[in-house]
Amino acid sequence: MARVVVDVMLKPEILDPQGQAVQRALPRLGFKGIADVRQGKRFELEVDGPVDDAALARIHEMAETFLANTVIEDFFVKVEEEK
Amino acid sequence: MARVVVDVMLKPEILDPQGQAVQRALPRLGFKGIADVRQGKRFELEVDGPVDDAALARIHEMAETFLANTVIEDFFVKVEEEK
Repeated sequence: MARVVVDVMLKPEILDPQGQAVQRALPRLGFKGIADVRQGKRFELEVDGPVDDAALARIHEMAETFLANTVIEDFFVKVEEEK
Repeated sequence: MARVVVDVMLKPEILDPQGQAVQRALPRLGFKGIADVRQGKRFELEVDGPVDDAALARIHEMAETFLANTVIEDFFVKVEEEK
């Protein structure tokens, strides 16, 4: 069993209202020095068996077709740990 | 300017309906071999100045009081890059 993480973030050129809302609230809560905040999604996938190239290719395809809307989002796949 | 990432995930013992919905859909879309899916949030913070211990302590406090609901969520702080 291995854990693969897929991070899905809005593309840099896309406005991020959620991130902006967080950023505007921070000074009011006393947290200064944060120039920008972007909010996205994190998927933790527990994969049966070894994470070989074939499995990674499949996860890439899954992220591209299902986990991310690639018109407005970028995704990043990372193998986090092999248990 | 440095980027600090805060990942917020439901605690393992908390039911994750979103993750389960994704997991149940995967086989229908032809993606097998994924034993479990957990979905959470990823915050990318652009921090003014160096990310020293004081800045990290502040970000931990921000995550604990504002970005995560620590009753049901865990959070993880990572310094990703110093530009």
